[in-house]
Amino acid sequence: MNRTSGSSSHTRQTSSRPQPSPRTSSFTPSLRRRNTSVSLPADPELACAEATAASADHVLHEEIAEIKRYEDFTTIDWVQDAAREQLRRRARRKERAGFWERENAHTGGGRGRGWVTWRGKIGEAYDAGQAWIVVTLVGAAIGLNAAVLNIVTEWLSDIKLGHCETAFYLNENFCCWGAESGCPEWKRWSGFAPINYLFYILFAALFSLTAATLVRSFAPYAAGSGISEIKCIIAGFVMKGYLGAWTLVIKSIGLPLSIASGLSVGKEGPSVHYAVCTGNVISRFFDKYRRNAAKTREILSASAAAGVGVAFGSPIGGVLFSLEEMSNYFPLKTMWRSYFCALVATAVLAAMNPFRTGQLVMFQVKYDRSWHFFEILFYLIIGVFGGLYGAFVIKWNLRVQAFRKKYLGQYAILEAVTLAVVTAIICYPNMFLRIDMTESMEILFLECEGDHDYDELCDRQNRWHMMFSLAIATVIRTLLVIISFGCKVPAGIFVPSMAIGASFGRMVGIFVQHLHESFPTSTFFSACEPDGPCITPGTYAFLGAAAALSGIMHITVSVVVIMFELTGALTYILPTMIVVGVTKAVGERFGHGGIADRTIWFNGYPFLDNKEEHTFGVPVSQVMASNIISLPASGLELRALERIINENQYQGYPIVEDSVSKTLIGYIGRTELRYAIDRAKRDQFAPGHAQCYFSSTDTGTSSRTPSSSMPPAVTFDTMSATSANLRIDLSKFIDPTPLTVHPRLPLETVMELFKKMGPRVILIEYRGRLTGLVTVKDCLKYQFKVEASENLNAGHAGGAEEREERVWRGIKGVAGWVDGGLNAVRRGLGMRGGDIRLVSPVSPVGVDGEEGLRDGEVELEDRGGGR
Amino acid sequence: MNRTSGSSSHTRQTSSRPQPSPRTSSFTPSLRRRNTSVSLPADPELACAEATAASADHVLHEEIAEIKRYEDFTTIDWVQDAAREQLRRRARRKERAGFWERENAHTGGGRGRGWVTWRGKIGEAYDAGQAWIVVTLVGAAIGLNAAVLNIVTEWLSDIKLGHCETAFYLNENFCCWGAESGCPEWKRWSGFAPINYLFYILFAALFSLTAATLVRSFAPYAAGSGISEIKCIIAGFVMKGYLGAWTLVIKSIGLPLSIASGLSVGKEGPSVHYAVCTGNVISRFFDKYRRNAAKTREILSASAAAGVGVAFGSPIGGVLFSLEEMSNYFPLKTMWRSYFCALVATAVLAAMNPFRTGQLVMFQVKYDRSWHFFEILFYLIIGVFGGLYGAFVIKWNLRVQAFRKKYLGQYAILEAVTLAVVTAIICYPNMFLRIDMTESMEILFLECEGDHDYDELCDRQNRWHMMFSLAIATVIRTLLVIISFGCKVPAGIFVPSMAIGASFGRMVGIFVQHLHESFPTSTFFSACEPDGPCITPGTYAFLGAAAALSGIMHITVSVVVIMFELTGALTYILPTMIVVGVTKAVGERFGHGGIADRTIWFNGYPFLDNKEEHTFGVPVSQVMASNIISLPASGLELRALERIINENQYQGYPIVEDSVSKTLIGYIGRTELRYAIDRAKRDQFAPGHAQCYFSSTDTGTSSRTPSSSMPPAVTFDTMSATSANLRIDLSKFIDPTPLTVHPRLPLETVMELFKKMGPRVILIEYRGRLTGLVTVKDCLKYQFKVEASENLNAGHAGGAEEREERVWRGIKGVAGWVDGGLNAVRRGLGMRGGDIRLVSPVSPVGVDGEEGLRDGEVELEDRGGGR
Repeated sequence: MNRTSGSSSHTRQTSSRPQPSPRTSSFTPSLRRRNTSVSLPADPELACAEATAASADHVLHEEIAEIKRYEDFTTIDWVQDAAREQLRRRARRKERAGFWERENAHTGGGRGRGWVTWRGKIGEAYDAGQAWIVVTLVGAAIGLNAAVLNIVTEWLSDIKLGHCETAFYLNENFCCWGAESGCPEWKRWSGFAPINYLFYILFAALFSLTAATLVRSFAPYAAGSGISEIKCIIAGFVMKGYLGAWTLVIKSIGLPLSIASGLSVGKEGPSVHYAVCTGNVISRFFDKYRRNAAKTREILSASAAAGVGVAFGSPIGGVLFSLEEMSNYFPLKTMWRSYFCALVATAVLAAMNPFRTGQLVMFQVKYDRSWHFFEILFYLIIGVFGGLYGAFVIKWNLRVQAFRKKYLGQYAILEAVTLAVVTAIICYPNMFLRIDMTESMEILFLECEGDHDYDELCDRQNRWHMMFSLAIATVIRTLLVIISFGCKVPAGIFVPSMAIGASFGRMVGIFVQHLHESFPTSTFFSACEPDGPCITPGTYAFLGAAAALSGIMHITVSVVVIMFELTGALTYILPTMIVVGVTKAVGERFGHGGIADRTIWFNGYPFLDNKEEHTFGVPVSQVMASNIISLPASGLELRALERIINENQYQGYPIVEDSVSKTLIGYIGRTELRYAIDRAKRDQFAPGHAQCYFSSTDTGTSSRTPSSSMPPAVTFDTMSATSANLRIDLSKFIDPTPLTVHPRLPLETVMELFKKMGPRVILIEYRGRLTGLVTVKDCLKYQFKVEASENLNAGHAGGAEEREERVWRGIKGVAGWVDGGLNAVRRGLGMRGGDIRLVSPVSPVGVDGEEGLRDGEVELEDRGGGR
Repeated sequence: MNRTSGSSSHTRQTSSRPQPSPRTSSFTPSLRRRNTSVSLPADPELACAEATAASADHVLHEEIAEIKRYEDFTTIDWVQDAAREQLRRRARRKERAGFWERENAHTGGGRGRGWVTWRGKIGEAYDAGQAWIVVTLVGAAIGLNAAVLNIVTEWLSDIKLGHCETAFYLNENFCCWGAESGCPEWKRWSGFAPINYLFYILFAALFSLTAATLVRSFAPYAAGSGISEIKCIIAGFVMKGYLGAWTLVIKSIGLPLSIASGLSVGKEGPSVHYAVCTGNVISRFFDKYRRNAAKTREILSASAAAGVGVAFGSPIGGVLFSLEEMSNYFPLKTMWRSYFCALVATAVLAAMNPFRTGQLVMFQVKYDRSWHFFEILFYLIIGVFGGLYGAFVIKWNLRVQAFRKKYLGQYAILEAVTLAVVTAIICYPNMFLRIDMTESMEILFLECEGDHDYDELCDRQNRWHMMFSLAIATVIRTLLVIISFGCKVPAGIFVPSMAIGASFGRMVGIFVQHLHESFPTSTFFSACEPDGPCITPGTYAFLGAAAALSGIMHITVSVVVIMFELTGALTYILPTMIVVGVTKAVGERFGHGGIADRTIWFNGYPFLDNKEEHTFGVPVSQVMASNIISLPASGLELRALERIINENQYQGYPIVEDSVSKTLIGYIGRTELRYAIDRAKRDQFAPGHAQCYFSSTDTGTSSRTPSSSMPPAVTFDTMSATSANLRIDLSKFIDPTPLTVHPRLPLETVMELFKKMGPRVILIEYRGRLTGLVTVKDCLKYQFKVEASENLNAGHAGGAEEREERVWRGIKGVAGWVDGGLNAVRRGLGMRGGDIRLVSPVSPVGVDGEEGLRDGEVELEDRGGGR
């Protein structure tokens, strides 16, 4: 006690000593010393005070780093992490400054100073440059990976159709390098068409089987698109392993397989996922990021940009996607990092040149004609379609996801294989579904003029047939997307949506063209030139793709930029903007947020959507938890503390002066507290009745009015030096300045604070007393409650469960029948091993990630786990 | 006193009554009622409580709106404005709900309910749609204005050279519609070249004279680019009249004049300015925006996007510019508004089609060849040039601005005219400077293949001559930009910078081309095809323009997008990104921020730059003002209050329980307080010794531990009803929940709070007691002090002042000589009126805007004014 209050009075003495005026010429050193006096209550006369400070700083820094701060399914405390980063920087600066001073004393300034400045500058440059090194490495790795995946995907897609005789590892393009279409070296599997068809289906099944098995066995987190989870992670949610090396490997292997299997899935979501994994894995090797979860999020944002950049060959589109969709907080610094990361990744991809076409623009189109104002009418139709498509797919896909979660949990592999086979069987008869989605988009985007024509798409006689074909393709692909997206293989939704939009758009385009050719002299078409073509159906396909993409993801600016980077059709910027604008407006009528947001909502992740604006009209006191466990600042016995920790799972505890007055002193995180207790027991051999003190300076002096010369933020006494082992000083582990608000503050403002500042917890303080505590989850729970009550009016679909049950019974019946048939076939062919892996009868408890995900899903409902 | 505590106990009673469980089926009404009980301490039995509440709400709302909240050169309180907006929405919702309930009682549900829902929905739609209506109107107005300005600018530019004989109001293009180059109807002013030259110079002088006179006489705020001021305004700084109708008119008229005068100024900054003025003027007509300064900022951001959109014909580039440069806080909602506003503006511009070319892409280029990896070496050179150019121009332009402010304040018009004349004289001999900057860029961007060639630019023999010409153009234009930017006519810096970059780039391009043609077989050029051209000098010009633009503004993503929207050269996306990246990196080595940020810094506006990251390592208590005037919650006499208000100029006062305990109760803004006092005196005839009460509920009950059922945020008793005129209840004017922080909180975190939440003031509270107060300006002052002390090391340019003095003496000498000569000429020509307006000998005290600007500049140093 003596020692502590001594230190306190000391502090006051130190800071009240007359300081040199900032306007004297010796301003810099005085300022530096003043900094020191703030952070350090040491004897000012002590010569080596600064060196000690630096080393004490360092020790504390190491100690803090040792604490494994974030547990699974918790949220990051951005405020704390930012403060930590500043502490680190300051320590580093001070270290250098101290070094400089000492060095200066040795050499007497002059040359030595210059040299030290140099050294300091290099150190500083490395410190500042660390981010750039990481971003460069990450970008290069992503670009490399993307190039390899592109080659593999192409090869796998082609192997379904045939093989190269000269070298089995070449795809059709490389096998027949230089030839226009096909060559004798590239052989189809058989001369008989139905056999080829069978091979095609078998390969599809094999690929999806492999992908699903890999995912299930090694990295359950590698399933699906990953965008919604990454959104939560970038916003500060912790999901251990979701961005791990293992997920990276499996996602990278599984992606080409699942695309080649012909499923209606895209590569963009998975690209983002493996890119972000890459960023996470690489940044782990660097000090700055290993220790600071909040800083790492900058790299993850940048990686996401690079992921989209390499998937579409659109670096700027990637940056904007990361800004618009992935990151809830995107400062300019992160934007600039994303820019750089996407640039490096795309440049590496371009240098690798996997397609040997030498260009990034995927579907280069050159539209000869500009658009006419009367066409806006049809653009509106396309825009409305995009919005409706998005709303429809989101709604039904979520239903399917609920069904999948309930009934198909243990049949993930079987499901994927079935989907692949069904897709292959259904899609073959339609000319637009048969080919790869990317390829079909390329065809649909093209103008009819020039020499390119695919299967008489531009043929005038065939028009009605084509329109019918395209309509069928639109409908079937939509249904396939609804049931495929979310199955347990790496699967995105960008490209399928764009393909659907393109087929619908082309259909509209052909219709308009037909209209124009039927009534060429109508006033409606007066803007057209009298002779010759006027309508370019390809542009409608292009706009349809933009509309569908915007409709499903609810993004605007990035879609426009991505479409330009994909095609280069810059004269169509206004139509694209109009279409996307209409889509967005229609989409907002029908639902809140794109498919990623809805999936987050569906899974119940603690994500504060910054697109939505709520007006609750309640103060935060309505939402806060008021029956909280707070720790008294002094006198708590160690065993009592341990019991408190063990008895509940709160993520942290407010510290109050005593349990009667409840004067708030600080906050301590659960992990820090546990670490501190463990250390006290280990280093101090503290017995169970040892008393813990959280506040070293102000015990019992609450009447003292603090002035502007406040005691320092962190005291650097080492713990064991304080006193005997009956007194445990935990004051340096607490956060003395948690964010606090008034209980009457509107909930909306508190949510803004969470969104913008990102603390893990906000304490409610009323005139110095702790009255409550609020977390993001409390806010979200309240929001859900309000939403649920609003939806009650709309009438909830009560019969949904029953219907699902009926569907499930039907599926089981079909499955039993097919399984019997397949088994018979297998038995006939002597293949026995297959069915063992197709259905895994045990529930996947052992697979930790999967289980963890489940925990995450229910976590929001389980208040205890949230704190 | 009795009345007050009665109300308090009442509140507690109300909120502690058992509430229906949220899980019962009647959840919605119960929730609604609960909302009401929170905001309203009225008798729950009273039947018409809600109607009363709504009307009381409305009265309060009107009252608040009446208060002129923001004075000139203050900052907006975003938190307060957001809360106000929520109050408004809630009131509106409640009003509707109450209406619905009453209506329901009448009709007994059924049809009536449907009808009311309809009506409610329409009301809601209008409320939500108000923003869209405003944005559409603003966009259309901007597009219209831009179209007119484009036509006028073109005509003015052409009239310098000649006139149309068929109709004087046609420019050369329209006069000779359809003809390739020139036609007999378009006549030059004279057949003799020197006379034409003289006409050219005279017109230039006339235009700049008109522009400068208009600006000086009617709207001093219309001078210059405006981007830095608008940045501050969007960040929350109040500058009355800067975005007024008068500024809009003068900027719109002055812009074509100053561009046509041939000065090295661009139209982008002014475009942004008039666009934002348009947004401000139009949004004033709408309730939602007139009353909420923070909400208006959304419209201003959107308008800025539209401004860039119409200036460059690049809507997406505009959105990104608004995001990257203009707005320090850019939520997705604002992005979406900006997108829409830019879309409407650009569409209107396209529909007006001022150039009759039918396209938005300003300099459409089609590069036949793609780039080669070896060219990256030269791209790096261009990137470095961009960075150096930016650093150089920013540094010297600021020097010139300082000089201008000190010496040229009263010679604004003379300065502009002199600059125009000098520019015209200097630029004529150089083929690239002679023509319009936009035109010269168009020429420089072109490939040499095809039939386009300007003055043998592509000629092989002329190469060295061309390179020399381009070098001269680069240097002269740079110097002209340095002295021209900031003179008192509407003047941007985008296009001049791009023109400079393009001429430098083309020079490099020609050099590389020459290199390749000299050593075609070198391994360095092995990527080239053996025969035929390999290097496209036009692409270097394109990249140079991007580099210079990025270098001067320090923006990245928007530059890339703007360049694509300008030219459509999408295959060059990677080179552009590389060049811009290098430029950014180089630029950051040399300076902090682009020219807009530096101008803000130079003028001392209270703007927290969110690009910079500082590590101060001090707690907020070091920066806060601790000797603040706080008002006791009760017992203060009216005359004492009035004296306090009159004696100082603080923007607001914290309310404490009493001056001894200093327990913080709330905060009251100066304007609200003054309004409340005036009203009390007017309505209540309150005498000077009447006592003011700021806290109606908790007086003297500080021992009460507040529970989760807190008293409501706002009490709706009307003021006069409270008691006799000796008691003035001011409680409803205070903000009971100001943002408070702990004194030990790091300054960095406090600055983050200011940046992200945007309060006007943050109170420092230590265990419930007020200990200090901090504003943005306090933070900035501290930051400046730290920066100044850092710069001391670097050695400040002490001799600058003396040098400036010498330059000024030189200029005066020359000016006297020229003036004498001119007067002689004038006397000879019989023109006497001119010189009266050229030099206005009085200092511009009467011009309120100018004077205000000066105030703003020194305000940061004047602490008293800041609070």
